[in-house]
Amino acid sequence: MTQDNKQVSGEDSLIARYFKPLATDPGAFGLVDDAAVLKAQGEDIVVTTDAVVEGVHYLADDPPETIARKALRVNLSDLAAKGAVPAGFVLTLALRKAEDAWLRPFADALGEDAKSFACPLLGGDTVSTPGPQMISITAFGRVPAGRMVGRVGAKPGDRIMVTGTIGDAALGLDIRRGGAVAAALAGDRVAQDELIGRYHVPRPRNALAKAVRAHANAAMDVSDGLAGDLAKLCAASGVSAVIEAARIPISPAAARAAVAIEKLVAGGDDYEILCTVPQDHIAALIEEAARVGVPIAEIGTVTAGREQPRLIDAQGADIVLSRLSYSHF
Amino acid sequence: MTQDNKQVSGEDSLIARYFKPLATDPGAFGLVDDAAVLKAQGEDIVVTTDAVVEGVHYLADDPPETIARKALRVNLSDLAAKGAVPAGFVLTLALRKAEDAWLRPFADALGEDAKSFACPLLGGDTVSTPGPQMISITAFGRVPAGRMVGRVGAKPGDRIMVTGTIGDAALGLDIRRGGAVAAALAGDRVAQDELIGRYHVPRPRNALAKAVRAHANAAMDVSDGLAGDLAKLCAASGVSAVIEAARIPISPAAARAAVAIEKLVAGGDDYEILCTVPQDHIAALIEEAARVGVPIAEIGTVTAGREQPRLIDAQGADIVLSRLSYSHF
Repeated sequence: MTQDNKQVSGEDSLIARYFKPLATDPGAFGLVDDAAVLKAQGEDIVVTTDAVVEGVHYLADDPPETIARKALRVNLSDLAAKGAVPAGFVLTLALRKAEDAWLRPFADALGEDAKSFACPLLGGDTVSTPGPQMISITAFGRVPAGRMVGRVGAKPGDRIMVTGTIGDAALGLDIRRGGAVAAALAGDRVAQDELIGRYHVPRPRNALAKAVRAHANAAMDVSDGLAGDLAKLCAASGVSAVIEAARIPISPAAARAAVAIEKLVAGGDDYEILCTVPQDHIAALIEEAARVGVPIAEIGTVTAGREQPRLIDAQGADIVLSRLSYSHF
Repeated sequence: MTQDNKQVSGEDSLIARYFKPLATDPGAFGLVDDAAVLKAQGEDIVVTTDAVVEGVHYLADDPPETIARKALRVNLSDLAAKGAVPAGFVLTLALRKAEDAWLRPFADALGEDAKSFACPLLGGDTVSTPGPQMISITAFGRVPAGRMVGRVGAKPGDRIMVTGTIGDAALGLDIRRGGAVAAALAGDRVAQDELIGRYHVPRPRNALAKAVRAHANAAMDVSDGLAGDLAKLCAASGVSAVIEAARIPISPAAARAAVAIEKLVAGGDDYEILCTVPQDHIAALIEEAARVGVPIAEIGTVTAGREQPRLIDAQGADIVLSRLSYSHF
């Protein structure tokens, strides 16, 4: 309607300037509509949602590039563990103010990841907040009908496997906060940077998604700590497990920090895939992981029963943990 | 794994206690998995996302019941305007603390709406925040392939129609804040309560979704003010429009407040459907609206051209607005 001030509203102009280039899917309608269209193409749509909050999941002075990548990648990690191929995402951005110096690198990095993971922006909502910034992403993937890999499905006798290394991100966060790990690695800038990098930017294992679907009975991504996440998977499947601490894959940087195993398995932010695999599928999964360049390790076995999973040392004795995982409440 | 403290983590227990009863769709897996499955059943999935922030979209002392209903209904309203039938939603809840006195009525009201609109909870994420609470919902609907009603599609000659009444929620917010409308309606408690009710709890027009799909060339929901939202629809469709101010439907309560038309058409939170309808479909749409009990009015006409839509008075003179709509930035 006729308006004295012909400027586009700040919100629309912000979306057009920063986020329209990311909306490459025809179903996004260039972000000019109120909704997006997702074609299922005969497959199931897998839906996952994860939010990151300033001061909780990232630090206020973290680079906007790493915040963007982390916000998307924590969702991509869920899709990978469910055996789903990324199809797109919607973004809710709660901002205190709209600053080019923050939004430009944020949007550019988000766009790079959207492209490299083939997961285009489909839509979103940009709102103002007087409080901490927050980025909430809902991501979509596709699996053949009925083929999402669940937490339910682990069977006694399955081997428990995990990708990458465990605990790095928790140590990286400790370093960022100037904790004990920072002191332990005081002279080792390379190790510190590597661990901080793991905290800032997860490496979701989407390359392994199809192999997980082909070979795993159950899977989830490790986001709140290996110990607690395995306990959740076992509870959902109605089984127990035994994990050999010495088999848990640890990075050289984490090894140099020389922290207790509890710090590694109860920390969060790993974003690796935890899965249970029948014996006769292990060789094929290992071969496929090698082909796509994802490290994977056998760390234990699913057992019958309903008790909490056990973590045992080299002598077979139980290692008792004071906490299993990160919880918000 | 073995843990000294056997308590379920607060976050998981919170989700199980409050939100599992809402997860009635088999694709939600009872909220024990990391992701949900959405079946497309040969149709397109329509995706929309809208967040509400404490102190911005609702007031800190608003009842948790109305906050829950508003958070879901603003998304249901988008689905209605797109001609989509609700299929489910995912919820991201950023809370300062987990209090039963707030969460219980919030979850119960959300569950009631999820049931009455046939839009079950599919999944979510619960995070802690040191700042204002925030509820971000991504909702899904289904339309026959290629049949989502877009903002693009309005044609010169189409009549412009709008459901319900316009401006009530903006006046309700003014009353809640003790503004000029509160003074104007000082002795009229009934009108005040009605307007506040429209601000607290939108009435999304999902009953009209199929008729919109059958009869409208273009549609959107009015969420940021009729004037600005019509301008967006026209810009997307490459057309202009003329609206007759006297035809804009106003509630009796709003009429009694006797505010300028600008206050009504540039306010937000209406959550009515704005659509453009070819002349030969108007009778059928009006008939269908009457059948499902949704008031609908013709307020103007789509015209050729690219200029801003005009709002005219009874003499045909332009009414100039100082602002078109609410914008966050």
